[in-house]
Amino acid sequence: MGKQYRNPFPTVDIIIEQEKGIVLILRRNEPQQWAIPGGFCDYGESLEQAAVREAREETGLTVELIEQFHTYSDPRRDPRQHNITTVYIARAIGGTPQAQDDAQEIGVFTEADLPAELAFDHDRILKDYFLYKKTGQRRALGTRATPGQT
Amino acid sequence: MGKQYRNPFPTVDIIIEQEKGIVLILRRNEPQQWAIPGGFCDYGESLEQAAVREAREETGLTVELIEQFHTYSDPRRDPRQHNITTVYIARAIGGTPQAQDDAQEIGVFTEADLPAELAFDHDRILKDYFLYKKTGQRRALGTRATPGQT
Repeated sequence: MGKQYRNPFPTVDIIIEQEKGIVLILRRNEPQQWAIPGGFCDYGESLEQAAVREAREETGLTVELIEQFHTYSDPRRDPRQHNITTVYIARAIGGTPQAQDDAQEIGVFTEADLPAELAFDHDRILKDYFLYKKTGQRRALGTRATPGQT
Repeated sequence: MGKQYRNPFPTVDIIIEQEKGIVLILRRNEPQQWAIPGGFCDYGESLEQAAVREAREETGLTVELIEQFHTYSDPRRDPRQHNITTVYIARAIGGTPQAQDDAQEIGVFTEADLPAELAFDHDRILKDYFLYKKTGQRRALGTRATPGQT
């Protein structure tokens, strides 16, 4: 590894599966849109720990992570700054769903009734997720590994 | 997302597949051990761009990314600081393999003849990789998503 410069920020997002759909939150802060629950990974904390913590902080749910889905890193995916997110698929194993912390509202959505506007690149992430659930197919990279396309 | 504190550092590692095995480098810096080529992701650069750049800088090879494999984030995986790595599987599409930049030697290894000592958690990563190549099975998280186990 070379010298260190300015680095992107690692974050996590957690797709929490419930019987009737997935859990989304309405963000309290800008952009005030529906989003997958998530947040920053702290120094000294694994992404898995961050995912469990952020899910609890924002939704009140205790989750068990099922699998790591994909890491999204396009510098344009978040207009505020360069945040890289690792997305986990999880299920709730305890707690009562309620909007907390950065969330002002919470809801359970199916692919058919997703909010019209989602924050950041979360529409893309959920598109990838629902495709994966249906086909088992993860995002291919071979033809996308050119600058700017991620 | 909440307030910002100190964050881990995003890095990439690239498993470059060749006909006779995968490409490893002998690190010039501490730890001076064999390792998967890789390095830091710059601010404003996607992980995919970083992977292509680092592969070229360290091995002289132009690579095409095949798929994103897994992101490893255990805070203990690198004794120097908390580096999170996203691992890509790639193939060389050009260039001549030669040790460059942070690499003092380059080699192609099969699972059977891997170096005895690998830097960081690269033994674990390659174990996961070879298992994946044989079985198609990615790392399950369900039972491992407890603090410290990642």
